[in-house]
Amino acid sequence: MSRFIVIEGLEGAGKSTVQHHVVAWLQARGCTVITTREPGGTPLAEKMRALVKEVHDEPLTMEAELLLMYAARVQLVKNRIQPALAAGTWVVGDRHDLSSQAYQGGGRGIEARLIRQIKEAVLGDFAPDLTLYLDIDPALGLSRARARGELDRIEREQLGFFERTRERYLELVLADPRCELIDASRSPDEVKAAVLACLERRLCTLG
Amino acid sequence: MSRFIVIEGLEGAGKSTVQHHVVAWLQARGCTVITTREPGGTPLAEKMRALVKEVHDEPLTMEAELLLMYAARVQLVKNRIQPALAAGTWVVGDRHDLSSQAYQGGGRGIEARLIRQIKEAVLGDFAPDLTLYLDIDPALGLSRARARGELDRIEREQLGFFERTRERYLELVLADPRCELIDASRSPDEVKAAVLACLERRLCTLG
Ligand SMILES: Nc1ncnc2c1ncn2[C@@H]1O[C@H](COP(=O)(O)OP(=O)(O)OP(=O)(O)O)[C@@H](O)[C@H]1O
Ligand SMILES: Nc1ncnc2c1ncn2[C@@H]1O[C@H](COP(=O)(O)OP(=O)(O)OP(=O)(O)O)[C@@H](O)[C@H]1O
Ligand SMILES: [Mg+2]
Ligand SMILES: [Mg+2]
Repeated sequence: MSRFIVIEGLEGAGKSTVQHHVVAWLQARGCTVITTREPGGTPLAEKMRALVKEVHDEPLTMEAELLLMYAARVQLVKNRIQPALAAGTWVVGDRHDLSSQAYQGGGRGIEARLIRQIKEAVLGDFAPDLTLYLDIDPALGLSRARARGELDRIEREQLGFFERTRERYLELVLADPRCELIDASRSPDEVKAAVLACLERRLCTLG
Repeated sequence: MSRFIVIEGLEGAGKSTVQHHVVAWLQARGCTVITTREPGGTPLAEKMRALVKEVHDEPLTMEAELLLMYAARVQLVKNRIQPALAAGTWVVGDRHDLSSQAYQGGGRGIEARLIRQIKEAVLGDFAPDLTLYLDIDPALGLSRARARGELDRIEREQLGFFERTRERYLELVLADPRCELIDASRSPDEVKAAVLACLERRLCTLG
């Protein structure tokens, strides 16, 4: 039986790094795995990602940003994630729906109910089986991300935006038993150990 | 006082032609007018239009199509239409929200309630003051459009798609007192006369 596992967290929290650990852990257990990233992950969804990430002269309204995120997500879910799961392939995603709830809801201040309505309208009750939320202080995460290169449109937001986003992440993660909170401010080795321990605990039925 | 007037109808119904008549009529009465087209009408909305109109290898899901239409519409409304109206400029639009209800709702079969939810989530009760719906048999409209050049992704749909779209247009137009139905199967001169008579009747307060 295959599953959809998602890694969530602020910029520089270590999502891409942890995605590798999860994939390696699954492959070592004989699972077939694909990875995704959001927004993006299909040719059309990557074009939508570009609209959201690039810096434009025209302001991108927060409502259009939200709709683009969901347009990209629907493309990815219907054209890649659901077919993979149906074929018995595990899917390990770098971001998914929780990002929209945290960034567009917490960060931008769009009403949670409106976001949920759009989500349900286009994706019904589709949801990850397990979400690993990498919790980090935004200043620390941004300093890690900045060391890697230029910041995109969203990464250029004020610190307050990321603080509101983190707060919403924490609220949602603590309320959902399918989410695990991992302290991502620790060293790479400590984070890796916490992630692997979590996988052992959560996915022990794999053997 | 300025107003938002929208021209609606199937491909080749004569929307762009009628848009010119409406603009000329308003300008002759001393109004300042801008025109818009949907999807599109701002730099970012035109990029979203391209995603919807182009033929891709990857299928564009009907849900993503719907969300892209609304993303483009929000950009246009917030960045161009509302500022123009606030400045006392009339806006004459080639398509608007009724198109999504008719094409995505009637044509594609997405539940009307879901479309309304998305509309209200991002645009509230914003709506045109007057809509001129140009009613035409889809085969006749498509033959006019085909004479003009290659057909885009949506224009390549089966006739049944446009028949369902027209049916939904008719239902919505007949139920809304801010919509006028114009028989667009007639000659250009007859359609023009019907449009101008409608403007005289509806906008007589202009003097
Ligand atoms: N626990 C850690 N401690 C210190 N540095 C880390 C840690 N985990 C990852 N890094 C480094 O921080 C940077 C960001 O990590 P990574 O790319 O995995 O984060 P991310 O959450 O995917 O970031 P983004 O949101 O920008 O994609 C990388 O250079 C990575 O090597
Ligand atoms: N009443 C009419 N009778 C015959 N031909 C017409 C009439 N009105 C417009 N046309 C012609 O039909 C073609 C389509 O008209 P127009 O571009 O105005 O339609 P449209 O609704 O804007 O089409 P589209 O949806 O493709 O943009 C044009 O070549 C136009 O000159
Ligand atoms: Mg990353
Ligand atoms: Mg036209």
